[in-house]
Amino acid sequence: MNVTVHGRTGHYRTVTFDRARNEARLIEQRLLPHEFKIVATRDFCETAAAIRDMIVRGAPAIAATAAYGLAQGALAFRGRSLEKFSRHLGAVYQTLKAARPTAVDPVNAMNIVRAAMHNGRTVEERQALALAAAEEFAEEDLRHCEAIGRHGVKLIRNGLRILTHCNAGWLACVDIGTATAPLYAAQAQGKKLHVFCDETRPRSQGATLTAWELAQQKISHQVIADNAAGHLMQRGEIDLVIVGSDRTLGRTGEVTNKIGTYPKAVLAKRHGIPFYVAIPLSTIDWHLKSGFDIPIEERDASEVLGAWGVLTNPKSKIRNPKSGWRAYVRVANPASGARNPGFDVTPPDLITGIITPAGIFKPRELWKNRRRLGFVG
Amino acid sequence: MNVTVHGRTGHYRTVTFDRARNEARLIEQRLLPHEFKIVATRDFCETAAAIRDMIVRGAPAIAATAAYGLAQGALAFRGRSLEKFSRHLGAVYQTLKAARPTAVDPVNAMNIVRAAMHNGRTVEERQALALAAAEEFAEEDLRHCEAIGRHGVKLIRNGLRILTHCNAGWLACVDIGTATAPLYAAQAQGKKLHVFCDETRPRSQGATLTAWELAQQKISHQVIADNAAGHLMQRGEIDLVIVGSDRTLGRTGEVTNKIGTYPKAVLAKRHGIPFYVAIPLSTIDWHLKSGFDIPIEERDASEVLGAWGVLTNPKSKIRNPKSGWRAYVRVANPASGARNPGFDVTPPDLITGIITPAGIFKPRELWKNRRRLGFVG
Repeated sequence: MNVTVHGRTGHYRTVTFDRARNEARLIEQRLLPHEFKIVATRDFCETAAAIRDMIVRGAPAIAATAAYGLAQGALAFRGRSLEKFSRHLGAVYQTLKAARPTAVDPVNAMNIVRAAMHNGRTVEERQALALAAAEEFAEEDLRHCEAIGRHGVKLIRNGLRILTHCNAGWLACVDIGTATAPLYAAQAQGKKLHVFCDETRPRSQGATLTAWELAQQKISHQVIADNAAGHLMQRGEIDLVIVGSDRTLGRTGEVTNKIGTYPKAVLAKRHGIPFYVAIPLSTIDWHLKSGFDIPIEERDASEVLGAWGVLTNPKSKIRNPKSGWRAYVRVANPASGARNPGFDVTPPDLITGIITPAGIFKPRELWKNRRRLGFVG
Repeated sequence: MNVTVHGRTGHYRTVTFDRARNEARLIEQRLLPHEFKIVATRDFCETAAAIRDMIVRGAPAIAATAAYGLAQGALAFRGRSLEKFSRHLGAVYQTLKAARPTAVDPVNAMNIVRAAMHNGRTVEERQALALAAAEEFAEEDLRHCEAIGRHGVKLIRNGLRILTHCNAGWLACVDIGTATAPLYAAQAQGKKLHVFCDETRPRSQGATLTAWELAQQKISHQVIADNAAGHLMQRGEIDLVIVGSDRTLGRTGEVTNKIGTYPKAVLAKRHGIPFYVAIPLSTIDWHLKSGFDIPIEERDASEVLGAWGVLTNPKSKIRNPKSGWRAYVRVANPASGARNPGFDVTPPDLITGIITPAGIFKPRELWKNRRRLGFVG
């Protein structure tokens, strides 16, 4: 999508690959929204570190990064021995996999790249096939998001006021995003819309990443405290909710997403407001049989007990403070602890529809349509 | 309640009055939870400033402070002329009233003090009556909170896990608190309980004030993001919700409270979890006929776009950082704005009961019991 820095507008993807230099290029997301910076990873170890240290985050984005990282590692190999090449590749694979051990998307992406290489007879051929497969993986993510936009845009009438939670935007994908894809498609059609970005405590991805994305794309928006959505719904100020998902159960239609998604779904139901979830096909888990089997990660208490930001005067209008000013403040009582579940599970009865690259489905109809949705089993 | 500072435990009220020095003494709430300090206001102007600048906050607490401030102003008068005394008193009244122009509680409290003075025939007699009335007002607030505790404690079985939102604790009253009164009463009976304190963004009164109170009283508790209550209810980890109120409509049973209260009530209803509101009688508004007539204050966007705290390392265990370290960090995208409604309205169908000093009532039964609840009209 477009990013304007110091008055200059350019088009950027979250993840790209520089073939000539054998480098992955990533938007440094930890500095956003306060600084926009592209970092290059010069070898697969640096690419793995970028995934581990969350320079890049979001399931589709880290999947594409891992695919590029595997190709990058393959291309760095010098020699003609297929056996040595294969051993080298195994080490690259393990390094990238270990960067986010609980994520399944990078593994799936790397398996696709590895499978593509089997057709090569020489090291050189396999190297070329790896890069082509990684590029194709990134392009497919893009096409998925575009397709989500095409299906989702039909839900967006002119003038709609939309609530979203966390960041399921282009920063979480290669480009365009999942929950944001219908918004950008609606904007392209000249429809007016206004987006309320849930702050999304404790990590505040809505206030930082989603608000930054929408500002760059010049979509009208406001940040709200996670507490405020209920009041806005009561007063008739929200027409539609769209969120992303970290794992959607294909068998039951249950949706795992950032903590705080479920309360918004309960509120939307009470107020008769449509609640949609936008996902790429890779987010569907065809194996688990119950939302209660989804492990909910308990994160560090410091996230709840304080906040990260840029030191400033509350009234200041500084637009580009230096990233060096980033600081953590302890908000809560120093002697108190916290609970910090990272995700929650929204049951299918609260979900109006799931927007996928293959169309919009009722959550309980995913299983019936599993062949169209890429299930192989 | 008890406060332990540097290993020494003492009993403190939020507001007291020093007769000999003619000073009000207030807990400086803006420094909590990072520093505990009592400030003395040496004249009624300083007392008004303390209310205006939110050194003291919470409807019952500022009501008692205003009552003391009026007595303080009366006692400072030198002379025997009842006419001059009366003129002086009018100025004191207006100064204190202007400190929080939208609050009705300080005005009600001062009217009680003023009415009590009518029985005095000399300046000296009236001064003594003013102080006695202010002291009586503070004592009555205390008795109200004790009565809320006596009624509310019956709801608390041993081992209960209770959710609360914002701060309706002793810091919002003269002592004991409203929503916290049943908790302290249960603790005194030897019952074990665990409290989840909603952080309560954007001003974080749950993470700062309520967590500090409970830590001082050694009640087991944890801070949670406002987003987390839904998940905890789903997993069966919350048994009861108790909150306070800023204005409860006697005619309809609708409850105005800090933004984010309504979503918790909706979630509690879905999960069959009892949802109670604890209020002193002064919180009941007998006039308004609909929750939609309650003006919802829109507060400064900077509250949502950032956070106040003490600069620290997220992993540090500093217990008493200096208040001078307090800082504001901008969390959100600098180019984005915010909506910041301060309160929401919870309808009576979501409220299990309203705990008052006169007993526990169904929200729709307040009107029927209006005589017992202090309605005069």
